[in-house]
Amino acid sequence: MSLIADTPEPPYVAVIFTSVRTDGDQGYAAMATRMDELARDQPGYLGIEAARDDVGVTVSYWADQESARAWKQVAAHLVAQQRGREVWYRDYRVRVATVERDYGPS
Amino acid sequence: MSLIADTPEPPYVAVIFTSVRTDGDQGYAAMATRMDELARDQPGYLGIEAARDDVGVTVSYWADQESARAWKQVAAHLVAQQRGREVWYRDYRVRVATVERDYGPS
Repeated sequence: MSLIADTPEPPYVAVIFTSVRTDGDQGYAAMATRMDELARDQPGYLGIEAARDDVGVTVSYWADQESARAWKQVAAHLVAQQRGREVWYRDYRVRVATVERDYGPS
Repeated sequence: MSLIADTPEPPYVAVIFTSVRTDGDQGYAAMATRMDELARDQPGYLGIEAARDDVGVTVSYWADQESARAWKQVAAHLVAQQRGREVWYRDYRVRVATVERDYGPS
């Protein structure tokens, strides 16, 4: 799998999730892997890019606002969001954006 | 400084820069620090969030499309972009997006 998402021509939707973790794993890694796999199965999923050092920045890409919203409401994901607020994240911010143009090296 | 950017109410612009590095530093760390400082001095700069492990994800936030475009054209930044294509990055993608809504834990 490529580390850079193979997204189509804009417009499409980017959900930027920035977070600061609490200490210790507390089931976080297993949940992150599970949510990653679950996201890939959702309608409108286009790709994901993620890195973490002091802060975690995860950007998931979606075909449209509807598919991004639907993913937020998937039952298992709602549970993860709840546990995220309670246990895993010291702080976070979610930003939903429409990508209007993109380019690479060539 | 907070790790999560203290952005205002949407709308504002997010520039999502995802990259895969080449091996070795080759002046990269010094440039990254300098560009970070330079960005902060630009009109319309709202904040930056960045993490790198296998892939680097850097999101800079701007008041509007004009300030995001102006930053792309700053002379020292153009030099860094050129050297990025030639030396520092195996691959990258830049996505310019309008943030339409955002939320945190509360």
